[in-house]
Amino acid sequence: MQSGQPEDTGQVAAAGAGREPPRRVGVVVGRSRTDAVELATKVADIGRRHGAEVWRADVWEDPVVQDELPGTDLVVCFGGDGTLISGAHLTAPLGIPLAGVNFGKMGFLTEFQPEEVPVALPQLFSGHYWLEERATLSVRHSRDGQTLGEYLTINEALVGRGRVNRVVRLHTWVDDQYLTSYAADGLLVATPTGSTASNLAAGGPVLPPEMNAMVLVPVMPFVSFRNALVLDASSRVDIQADVTPAPPLHEAVLSVDGGITAPVEDGDRLTVTASSVRCAFARVRPRHYFHAMLVSKLQRGPILPPLPVNTPSPARP
Amino acid sequence: MQSGQPEDTGQVAAAGAGREPPRRVGVVVGRSRTDAVELATKVADIGRRHGAEVWRADVWEDPVVQDELPGTDLVVCFGGDGTLISGAHLTAPLGIPLAGVNFGKMGFLTEFQPEEVPVALPQLFSGHYWLEERATLSVRHSRDGQTLGEYLTINEALVGRGRVNRVVRLHTWVDDQYLTSYAADGLLVATPTGSTASNLAAGGPVLPPEMNAMVLVPVMPFVSFRNALVLDASSRVDIQADVTPAPPLHEAVLSVDGGITAPVEDGDRLTVTASSVRCAFARVRPRHYFHAMLVSKLQRGPILPPLPVNTPSPARP
Amino acid sequence: MQSGQPEDTGQVAAAGAGREPPRRVGVVVGRSRTDAVELATKVADIGRRHGAEVWRADVWEDPVVQDELPGTDLVVCFGGDGTLISGAHLTAPLGIPLAGVNFGKMGFLTEFQPEEVPVALPQLFSGHYWLEERATLSVRHSRDGQTLGEYLTINEALVGRGRVNRVVRLHTWVDDQYLTSYAADGLLVATPTGSTASNLAAGGPVLPPEMNAMVLVPVMPFVSFRNALVLDASSRVDIQADVTPAPPLHEAVLSVDGGITAPVEDGDRLTVTASSVRCAFARVRPRHYFHAMLVSKLQRGPILPPLPVNTPSPARP
Amino acid sequence: MQSGQPEDTGQVAAAGAGREPPRRVGVVVGRSRTDAVELATKVADIGRRHGAEVWRADVWEDPVVQDELPGTDLVVCFGGDGTLISGAHLTAPLGIPLAGVNFGKMGFLTEFQPEEVPVALPQLFSGHYWLEERATLSVRHSRDGQTLGEYLTINEALVGRGRVNRVVRLHTWVDDQYLTSYAADGLLVATPTGSTASNLAAGGPVLPPEMNAMVLVPVMPFVSFRNALVLDASSRVDIQADVTPAPPLHEAVLSVDGGITAPVEDGDRLTVTASSVRCAFARVRPRHYFHAMLVSKLQRGPILPPLPVNTPSPARP
Repeated sequence: MQSGQPEDTGQVAAAGAGREPPRRVGVVVGRSRTDAVELATKVADIGRRHGAEVWRADVWEDPVVQDELPGTDLVVCFGGDGTLISGAHLTAPLGIPLAGVNFGKMGFLTEFQPEEVPVALPQLFSGHYWLEERATLSVRHSRDGQTLGEYLTINEALVGRGRVNRVVRLHTWVDDQYLTSYAADGLLVATPTGSTASNLAAGGPVLPPEMNAMVLVPVMPFVSFRNALVLDASSRVDIQADVTPAPPLHEAVLSVDGGITAPVEDGDRLTVTASSVRCAFARVRPRHYFHAMLVSKLQRGPILPPLPVNTPSPARP
Repeated sequence: MQSGQPEDTGQVAAAGAGREPPRRVGVVVGRSRTDAVELATKVADIGRRHGAEVWRADVWEDPVVQDELPGTDLVVCFGGDGTLISGAHLTAPLGIPLAGVNFGKMGFLTEFQPEEVPVALPQLFSGHYWLEERATLSVRHSRDGQTLGEYLTINEALVGRGRVNRVVRLHTWVDDQYLTSYAADGLLVATPTGSTASNLAAGGPVLPPEMNAMVLVPVMPFVSFRNALVLDASSRVDIQADVTPAPPLHEAVLSVDGGITAPVEDGDRLTVTASSVRCAFARVRPRHYFHAMLVSKLQRGPILPPLPVNTPSPARP
Repeated sequence: MQSGQPEDTGQVAAAGAGREPPRRVGVVVGRSRTDAVELATKVADIGRRHGAEVWRADVWEDPVVQDELPGTDLVVCFGGDGTLISGAHLTAPLGIPLAGVNFGKMGFLTEFQPEEVPVALPQLFSGHYWLEERATLSVRHSRDGQTLGEYLTINEALVGRGRVNRVVRLHTWVDDQYLTSYAADGLLVATPTGSTASNLAAGGPVLPPEMNAMVLVPVMPFVSFRNALVLDASSRVDIQADVTPAPPLHEAVLSVDGGITAPVEDGDRLTVTASSVRCAFARVRPRHYFHAMLVSKLQRGPILPPLPVNTPSPARP
Repeated sequence: MQSGQPEDTGQVAAAGAGREPPRRVGVVVGRSRTDAVELATKVADIGRRHGAEVWRADVWEDPVVQDELPGTDLVVCFGGDGTLISGAHLTAPLGIPLAGVNFGKMGFLTEFQPEEVPVALPQLFSGHYWLEERATLSVRHSRDGQTLGEYLTINEALVGRGRVNRVVRLHTWVDDQYLTSYAADGLLVATPTGSTASNLAAGGPVLPPEMNAMVLVPVMPFVSFRNALVLDASSRVDIQADVTPAPPLHEAVLSVDGGITAPVEDGDRLTVTASSVRCAFARVRPRHYFHAMLVSKLQRGPILPPLPVNTPSPARP
């Protein structure tokens, strides 16, 4: 990238023409790592140099975030996919796009590696990015006709067993049609975003980021239907839990985006539909970036490095 | 659909308002079974009583079919899913809908059981059906820049090993982005229609019949990426075969819809895109019939009945 | 079995010659079902008529069981596989064989259907049975070099996530050799007995009941090695948990035989070896009964019956 | 192995005490690669310096091999696992151990990397190795009671579809008990040696090299029992093929060790039992080497390197 024409690359050209530069920008560090904190300071400076009003918070839980978010045009966040998902629970309902700098392992959602910041962020703050809009889900948990909770889902909702290793029975309907009854560890409903997370481990398919669809996939199905179902975003999934014997021998739990859990009792119902909320990410990479990085990221793996091959067993004296 | 008629059921109501009755109807027996032949005669009679011009053929290969198809409004076919897929290769390019009477095992595509004919066919010939339009694929096979063949694909295309049990290496691109190189028995690209066929056995997801998407799934991947990819119908998949050592030690084959095979040589390329052809089926069941029958059909299984539990081994004298 | 010719059936012949009839017999009902209770009374009567001393308890937790077990030659138990596994934790260390009458779903371990009792139990009490001896495992849970617990394992031990849907990292050694580090929902070590339980759902292989081996299989591995490992009974598996972030965001749990759970902290170690305890079952069926019933039992499925196909969705008003 | 010598390592100590040095040694190049040929010359020299009589052949198909093999104590072979499997078909029936130098990808069976030859081969020729003895299978193919062929199987036998992508129906018995009927691409019976080959891709478990067992696993089962079965080496598997419709629409094939194929007709039977032949490998690594290298080898993968991430699609002009 030379001589003051940062946008003059094939990559940016592929990203489409520029847009109005963001006027109000949030910077959320996300990780208490020195290098992330330092980089956040640099990014805030770059933002201000590009004429943006910049606010900053150390973690998503900081009350500053809720105060400052309204009216924000873009939030730059430092962390891994988990940090971005946490942030998206706040930004997506307000329609604010996220741009992630990868300080985690996989980085399916992040757009930049830390070392790309000096070149890439000026590009971003000049408005040379496109918006990737991803579908989200709404999960309603009800008991005896009463709604106990309703959850925005960026990645996936899992209803299944808690601590005890026993199958849960889950009667399932798609669009009011009885599909089947699963005997399984759990049943997962994932967004396209979540298709590279738990869904992948459950054997489900990877969906393109902007597809209007969801995936239903059982976890450890015991002699039940195993294949994932891809459903149109207009579909509704109803799940009724059959948890016998009762706790403490057995228990069922709803877990949303790996961070919220709620106990599920026998007869409880979960209703999953598309949410009207879209989760937006600011991207500078070409539109088809997703399939170019998918497999190489996965094959690099989530444990880097593993232990050295000759690591002695901890059982050895 | 008028009041007081026996076919005035909720099911048909769910199928939406009627349409222009088919004026020219084909009847293709498909199976040389006496009961199918007899039922075809009955169906032709019902058609004529409803004022349709009816032509008939015993099998899809009958030259009569090619002569009579143009101008036909609907073809009723007797057989299993395989028979319907064969027929669809002829009807789909002409935009003619198919209605199948199940004489096969699964019957994912057929609309009627034989015993439903007396009640359901009058309904069909009165125009009380809706059209389910399914996406198809086009597979182009090329060598050194020359196109060797181009195949309409209703279910799936499989490129992979032939008779010898050795992995084939398949370099794969999605939308011009290098995805990965599979070492596998083969690579399958399936339509939503084909998602309940080989794709299911390969661990791929089931797609709703009318989704505009395709599935890419490896068959027996050897230490390669295992999960299926769902792709938008606008995507293009390019596959380049690496077949070493050369035949006869090794060989690769393209197999389309379980019926067409072509040898694939080292360096050959397969390009898969959505076809402009839609494969139409006439349906009288409610719009959401698919998920209501999916699992129960699958659990009934493809081998009915299996051998009795105490069947002595053929190895016994 | 009447008239002094107990061995005069193919089945019994296959079971080998008779043995000393059991002199002291326990009857454990296991299930608070009227029919089970009544049948237990009948069985106790049959036992006494065959000259056995019979003691009885309603559930395995009844203190009578611990008092009466020593010196018992055989326990007849009414329930499903879960009830038998519970009982085996008490009988196996004492070397007492179990005979199960199936009041559960699968009944992989039970020997009799309730309706077979009148004919089969006299056979059993006459000593016309053989002993199937199955391997068990010992799981030691340690922290900072201190043993926290040691568990006899009849089916399987699972170390993995608790309620929150987040992967646990599990460093794993086989025979002091570093195998790999799993990022997964959990890691399962199963006996041949447990190979038809959770292991099956995790994709593991089915082992013959009397094989001297164990199975190691990950649950929902995320980009980790997926295939199960079969290990010789002489092998030792060491697992070290890496649970970050700390609870409550994350938690790990050890679950043994679907009934015992213990919290696992970051750095905790699980060591799995063969136990010297053998779990014995009294069988009257031929030696090769296992593969004759395996698939048919599984295909009948664990939810019988599922809901009827047209069951309206609970979400419907 | 005495003190003060460079090869006096813990590794060799772990390999147990030495044995009688091999007096007659074969060297088979296997691969027509210059480096393999040169290394083979070096190895032959080392052998002669250790007092062995050495014969040499370029490929296993060389008639010299058959002439020289009888009376040979050890064969050193250069190549990958495929080359060793080919060789084992000749050496195993004569009880001659193989030592492989890896010129292939995986090298599960080879003992040495090329660069280890100068240090390791003197060790080998001094008799400091142990024998790993692996079970093999015998597959008998019969039609109408006539045996058509009988095959020694080092890795696996696959009976299944040929070129056309259609499921084959395979009725299967274990020890004369009817197991189930598979509708699948094929059915694989693998040895422990073969458990890291096709079996792995089919989802089967990895068995320790010296276990006396076999694995039965379906390939692409269509709504059939999916899990692998581990069977004792004393078991017998009978498979009867049901191939309808007849070829050319459909065909079935037996493929043994990825190199031998025979057409299978409707009604043909395959009988798989343990063979009395053991396949021996000379090893200098510790007894528990297998699990130390298993996962790291697999994760390095069979395609090294894949294409670079930005490789343009061949479809691009």
